[in-house]
Parts: sequence; structure tokens; C-alpha cells
Amino acid sequence: MESSTFVLFGATGDLAKRKIYPALYNLFLDGKISTPLSVIGLGRRELSNEAFQAQVLNSLQTFSRKPAEDSEKLRTFIQAFEYTVLDVGRPEDYVKLLGHVKAREEDLGIPENRMFYLSVGPEFFGEIAANINSSGLGSTKGWKRLVIEKPFGTDLASARVLNESLSAAFKEEEIFRIDHFLGKPMVQNLEVLKYSNPVLRALWKNRYIANVQITASETVGVEERAGYYDKSGALRDMFQNHMLQLLMMTAMQLPKGSTPEDVSNKKRYVMESLRPLIKDDLTRDVVLGQYAAGEIKGNPVPGYLDEPGIDSSSRNETYIAARLWIEDPMWNEVPIYIRTGKRMKEKSTRIVIEFKEPLNDYNNLNKGNTDPNLLIIDISPNEAITLQLNTKDPLRTGKLEPVRINYQLGNPEIPESYENLIYDALRGDSTFFAHWDEVELSWQWVQPIQEAMEAGVLPLHSYAAGSHGPAAAAELLGDDHWWLDENEEPEAQEIQSVPAGVL
Amino acid sequence: MESSTFVLFGATGDLAKRKIYPALYNLFLDGKISTPLSVIGLGRRELSNEAFQAQVLNSLQTFSRKPAEDSEKLRTFIQAFEYTVLDVGRPEDYVKLLGHVKAREEDLGIPENRMFYLSVGPEFFGEIAANINSSGLGSTKGWKRLVIEKPFGTDLASARVLNESLSAAFKEEEIFRIDHFLGKPMVQNLEVLKYSNPVLRALWKNRYIANVQITASETVGVEERAGYYDKSGALRDMFQNHMLQLLMMTAMQLPKGSTPEDVSNKKRYVMESLRPLIKDDLTRDVVLGQYAAGEIKGNPVPGYLDEPGIDSSSRNETYIAARLWIEDPMWNEVPIYIRTGKRMKEKSTRIVIEFKEPLNDYNNLNKGNTDPNLLIIDISPNEAITLQLNTKDPLRTGKLEPVRINYQLGNPEIPESYENLIYDALRGDSTFFAHWDEVELSWQWVQPIQEAMEAGVLPLHSYAAGSHGPAAAAELLGDDHWWLDENEEPEAQEIQSVPAGVL
Repeated sequence: MESSTFVLFGATGDLAKRKIYPALYNLFLDGKISTPLSVIGLGRRELSNEAFQAQVLNSLQTFSRKPAEDSEKLRTFIQAFEYTVLDVGRPEDYVKLLGHVKAREEDLGIPENRMFYLSVGPEFFGEIAANINSSGLGSTKGWKRLVIEKPFGTDLASARVLNESLSAAFKEEEIFRIDHFLGKPMVQNLEVLKYSNPVLRALWKNRYIANVQITASETVGVEERAGYYDKSGALRDMFQNHMLQLLMMTAMQLPKGSTPEDVSNKKRYVMESLRPLIKDDLTRDVVLGQYAAGEIKGNPVPGYLDEPGIDSSSRNETYIAARLWIEDPMWNEVPIYIRTGKRMKEKSTRIVIEFKEPLNDYNNLNKGNTDPNLLIIDISPNEAITLQLNTKDPLRTGKLEPVRINYQLGNPEIPESYENLIYDALRGDSTFFAHWDEVELSWQWVQPIQEAMEAGVLPLHSYAAGSHGPAAAAELLGDDHWWLDENEEPEAQEIQSVPAGVL
Repeated sequence: MESSTFVLFGATGDLAKRKIYPALYNLFLDGKISTPLSVIGLGRRELSNEAFQAQVLNSLQTFSRKPAEDSEKLRTFIQAFEYTVLDVGRPEDYVKLLGHVKAREEDLGIPENRMFYLSVGPEFFGEIAANINSSGLGSTKGWKRLVIEKPFGTDLASARVLNESLSAAFKEEEIFRIDHFLGKPMVQNLEVLKYSNPVLRALWKNRYIANVQITASETVGVEERAGYYDKSGALRDMFQNHMLQLLMMTAMQLPKGSTPEDVSNKKRYVMESLRPLIKDDLTRDVVLGQYAAGEIKGNPVPGYLDEPGIDSSSRNETYIAARLWIEDPMWNEVPIYIRTGKRMKEKSTRIVIEFKEPLNDYNNLNKGNTDPNLLIIDISPNEAITLQLNTKDPLRTGKLEPVRINYQLGNPEIPESYENLIYDALRGDSTFFAHWDEVELSWQWVQPIQEAMEAGVLPLHSYAAGSHGPAAAAELLGDDHWWLDENEEPEAQEIQSVPAGVL
């Protein structure tokens, strides 16, 4: 990996402190980032390099996965950070920035590889990209890349406008859209699980799969993000991006010799294969909810409308569940259930594959139904793979008993999402990023929901904080039902690797 | 279940004390045995009822799974035991026994259901059966059953002779041949695992299974059984019965609505489908071994020829491994590897299903081979189901990493083998017993091995005590290899059942 300059817009912001600096530091300690390292932080207000470096150090001490004790390594790392004041609207500031970047490139002998990380509001993306271009910052002998965070627009039209403004300055392959769900180890494990295990590969067929359930539930409410969230809601904040990305990662089938382009193509194919929502049937396929007052782990919490900063007449959804169909031979007739919400009973991101019931003859033979087999992939906060099987009750009551066989990661050495993603961006590997086609097709798919919400024709169901969401979400599944709602996490299980000797 | 009389031949013997009395007691405590209970113990030497009852009590206190503290229940149980002296060769003793049995049947109001449990040497089986018949003991208004323990003959001819002598007095459905391996919970779980789990059912095909490995290894040597063992050897002592029974339980496919007869039929079908051994190819398919001096868990142990009671020139095998083929569409071209031995490195009975390698395209894609998927069924001393999958190394070294997902029984409430089997015999359920056809076909299959051994044309390989057997056993597998030899047991995992609410 060639050395590069990391130009960070929004260097004094919350994301930078919580995620970006710790990620860079841990990559640095793991030797996954090429040196010499040059990070130029940008912000609206004046700040000395020393004051900036103190902020960075403070963020490491507070948020770093690996300890940030004083050391030669730590000092070297901190020295890589310099600050320049920049008003995103003032072209001359970019020229000044270019001078700063070039000076350090020459000092440190860093080739003209420049990564522009926009940790700022999306309203600034276009302007910044344009100025990077016009200022000459983007005219490098090496590579240039743009890293941005969601939201990528608020609907199909605005997303297209945003993308056009970015495209004027950056090619698609130069744009890295971070969806931090895609950085999570279990999500990155999905393709490998499916394709390096013949037993799962054999089972990954609509012949065996009854349905797929993707859940991302939070226990928190809107917290300090009321202003943003009351405009965004669960659909924009979670569903259009994270949830549909999880769907793509779960459903896609990789061809021989997978490249980032293949992944992008396969994800696009999944989105293109999604059966479009029909306006008149929306209420059958989509359930919206808004939390009322309730209890989270025994503590009373207010309803959404009583949250500070929320319009007390808000119709904003804090929960959405949907039933989707992929019109593809492999997923034909396999419903995919997706739900996400705030103030839910448990904090959990999880994919459950429900396999079809045993043949009836065997049910008869065993008097009474067995539980279906489940493959449970816990993404966060747990990282686990669990298979639910039926076994004979060893106490020989004659009943069959579902048991969970379970493997859990839980390794402190596992990199965090942002480490994985920034590392990939630095390597120029876009496998685990959201590509424009996916973003566009996602907005396109959710548009009927947005229109129905604006037209006020979609009911907004109430659910108690601390519950599993509105009752209507259960009805959405018909004869199926959401798995594991009543059930605690499977127990931890140590990693059991086979020593090389056996391989 | 109707009440019955339990007539035990060899009531002062080791098996009775270690297994039969504790099993009866635990069944009694679990309410799985109908009362009033009448157990009549038989032995060659004079013994008062009181002395006999004291022996029974002592055996419970020493060997019972559930504690045998003094209690009303315990006293009731002990009172059920009475003793009669009997010389198996003296017909008049059986007449006396009949009187005793009838008297208690009348006293206790027990219908004429009589279970004759022959916990004596097989040389007495025929004589005892004949006397049961001639004495009138077998002429009951209720049911009569004969329970016998292996060995069921020492070769095909002797087994047939034995069976004819038994058949003169008992019908096949009245004969319960105990193979205690068939009483083990995980063995009894095999059929349920295969047929109540669509995911396993889908995979239980030669399309997906590369090979099956059945291992029963002991760390002990011949102990006090030198006299018997030096005549028997691993083939007669373990392979012809336990190992082939495990093979049948693993390979059989149950039809709709499984009855004990179906199980018997399916097991016979497996044995009938076994490709017969060809004399000239025996050395290719069978490996015999005899342990030399070595170490068990750090302690030096003598070689077989130096064991007390073993002829120092003995050619007796303490280890046997074989490759078998089931000529059946489902098992076509799936080699089945079976091995058993004494003085091995670990005490373990285990079935490993190795699944076929991932498609080559995916191997290429991931540079370097992945481990195969394994389904590991631990039968004893552990009782576990483990699935080995490949996952992406979460540390992102780019390597694939085999992990084990594992479910372990380990429930103290689980009945022991003899409890399960005696319970089934009392219920008249022969599902988990060895039926004559199976015994006969097993002897028939091993006969070429016996003949080659007698002709001395099969090499006897030496292996160090505490090893995994002779090197030749590894060569037997060709490109395959024995799994888990270098590897400790997977970690324990608590049972995770889904509460009724979710079902």
C-alpha cells in the first residue's frame, strides 16, 4: 500500500473523535497503514497544530480499542496530524490547503495519493467536491479518493442530485460511501460463510429456506439527534441504507473469482430483482410504528412525542417492518422480513434463516411438530453463528427438543467497523462500501413508501417502548413469526480452531 | 406398562452390581418401572434374601446415578429383591424357581409377565433357555422375554448354534440382545438428528458426504479380562458387535412411520448392502494392530504381550481398522472408516461425517484450500454435536479459519445406557437391541477376516500404547485422514432450548 495524505473535513467533529482517529491509530499500531502518515484536519475555527494534536490524543485515550499509553509510536502517530482552518464555501481556503498538502508531501516524501474524508453534513458534499476539483487538490499524479458518510440524499431525486455533484469531481470508483454495517466482521463473513461451506452452500436455496429475517433493533430513543431524526425517521435513517445493504449481502450470490466489481454487480442484481412495491398493497407489505411511553430494562421512558426536540404532533416513524420478495430462481417464494426500530426490547442486529419444516411424514411419525431449523447470524452486539437443530430429548420424554449449537467470536483483537472500512478505502478496495447503483436502487425501491407517508395513507402504529414493535408487524408475517423475540442470546462459545497439524 | 417379574441369572455377578441393580433403582425412582416390583436373583451359592438385599443395597450405594440414601422408597425397592440358589444345569432348580416366581406373583398380584435376564457366560445361554422352557417357567399367561448380553457366539457357525438353542425356547421378538452402545443417548439420537432436521436430511447424501469415520478408542488395556480378551480380540469384542451396530445406526434410513420392525429391517438392509470383503484384498481394507509398551497420560504401561494372563507369543489383535462400502444409491462411493482399539491416546467413541470439499472455483477464489465441513457426533464420554464450518478470519488475515459450533448434553439427569435398555425391554420395545439378522450378517461379514487371521495371512501391526494406532491405519485412508486425532474435545456448551412460548 502506497503512502497517502488523509484530508479530513470535520476534524473537530464527533465522528472524527469517536471513530476516525481511533481507527487510524489502531491501523497504525497493526501496521496496516503505510507510513510516513500525513493527516490534515480541517475545521471552520482557528486551531493550532498542537491544540489539534491534543484533541486527537484525547480522543485516542477515550475511544481507542487498543490503549493509547505514551510511547514513541504514539508520539509518532500524533505528529502526523496537522490542522488547517477551512471554510467549505471559500475557494481560496482550498488553495491554501493544497499548499499545505503539497508541502507535507514533499517534506515526508509522500506520493500524491490523497484521500478526502468528508465527516460533515451532506449539504456540504457537493460544494466540497467541486472545490477540491477547482482548487487543483484533485489533480494528483497519484490517486484521489472521496470518503463520505450517509445520508446519501433523502429520496431518489435528492440522491441523484448529490451524486451528480460528486461525479463532476470524482469517478464512481473514487467514491467510497461508508455504511458502517458493512464493516462489521459478521457482515464481512457472510459471503465466506455461504461459499466456503458446502453444507451451507447446499442449503442456501429456496428449496430449503422458508424465510429470511433481518432485524436491527435499538433500545435507545432519539437522544441528541431529535432534530435530524424527526426529519429522517427509521426509513431514511436505517432501512434504505443499512437494512437493504444487509439484505444484499445476505441474498447475493458470488460468481467464480469474486472482485469488488462482482460484489457491486451482484448487489445491484439483488436490488434489481426486488419486487417493486405496489402502492395499493403497501399496507400489506409495510408496517410503520412510533414508540409510546414504556419501559426499557425496568426504567420508564417517555414516548417519542414527549422526547425533547420532537414535534409533539410528529407522524415520524421510529419503526418500520417490511416483507420483500426477490424475483430470482433461487429466492423465488422465499419471503424476506426486515424490521428496524428504536426503543425496542433488545439491542440487536441479527439475521435469521428459517429452514423449511421437516417432511410431514416425519412429523406424523414423531407426533407433534418439530421446531424449524434456524441459522442465526448475530452481527451486533454479539457476533455469533448459531444453528438450531432438533434432537431427541435425552430424558426420553418422547418429545423432540430444539437445541442451539453456537459459535461466538468475542475476540478483543477484532478490528472495529471503521478500522476495516478505512483500511479498505486506503487500499482502494470497495467491496464493503455502498455503490451508487445500490444507493439509487434502494431509494427507488422505498419511494412508494415515502410517497404513501407523505400522502398520509400509511397507518402509523403505536408500540410501547421496550416492546418488540407494533402488533401489526407480527400480522405482516402471516403464518410465520419473528424468531428469538422471546429468547435470550445463545451462550458464548470459545473459538475452536483446528491446529495446522490437522489440516 | 404391566407389572412383571424380573428373573436375574448371575445375580451376584459384577454386571448385576455395577449396572443392572443401579439401572432398576433409577428406573424405579423415575417411576419408569411398574410396581409392585418382583426381582428374583439367582446364583450358584446359597444366599439368604437378607444377604442378597444387602448386596443390592451396597451396589446402589456404590454405583447408582441417583443417591441411594435410606428412605421409604429405597426400602420398598430393596424389599422387591429375593434370592434363589440355582445350578443352571439342574432342571429341578428351575421347577423350584417356578414355584418361587408363582408364589410372589400371587402374593403381589403380578400378572405372569416374566423377564429372564441372563447375566452369565454365553456358554450357559442355551441350557438356561431350554430349562426355562421345560420347567414351565416359560409357559406364562402373560409375556416372557429373554435378555442376553454379548458375545452372541464367536463366529458365524457358533452364533447360529446359539441362536437355534435360544429359538427352541423363545421367539425372536422375545429375545432382547443387549448392545450397550445402542443404549447411549447420542446413539439413540442419531435417527432423530437425521430425520427431524431438514438441514441434515438434505445433506445426508453421498452427493455431500465425503466419508464417514466411526471410532471407539479405549485407553485401558486388558485389565482383569486377559483370559477372555486374548481369545476374543478387538474383532470379536468390539468390531463385530458395537462398531457394526454404530455403522447400521449411522447409515440406516427410516421409512415413514418408524416401528421397531422398520428399524430392524433397515439395519438388516445396511448389512446386506455392505460390500463383502474379498480375501485377496483384505490387507487393503483391514488393518490389525497389537499394542506395544508405551505411555498413557505420562505413565508408562506394558505392551500387550507383557500383560498378566496374556500368552507372550499371542497374535491377538488389540486394534482393528477397516474400510467399508455400502452398495446403495445413497452411500455409493462414500468410504466408511471404522476403528477400535485398546491403549489408545484418548478414550472416545465418536462419529465424524466429513463433507465434500468446497467447489474448486471457490478454493481458487480464496487461494489455498479450506478445511472440509465436519459433523462430529460425540457418543462417549462426551455427548456432543459439533459442526465445523469455515469462516473468514475476523482479524482479516485473508485466511479462512475452521471453527466448531458445538452443542453438548452433559445433563446429570440423562439415564444411563442400561436404564434405557432395561426400560425398553420391560416395555417390549426392541428398537435399540441387536436383532438376530444383524448378528448373523455381522458375523458373516467379518468371517473372511477371521479366516485370514487363523490362516495367519493378515499382518499384525504394532503400535505404541498411548498412540492413535498403527501407521498402517492412516495409510488405509489413502488421501483421507482420521479427524480429531490431534485435537482435544470441543468445549462444553450449555443446552439452549426454545421456551414453549416461541414454538
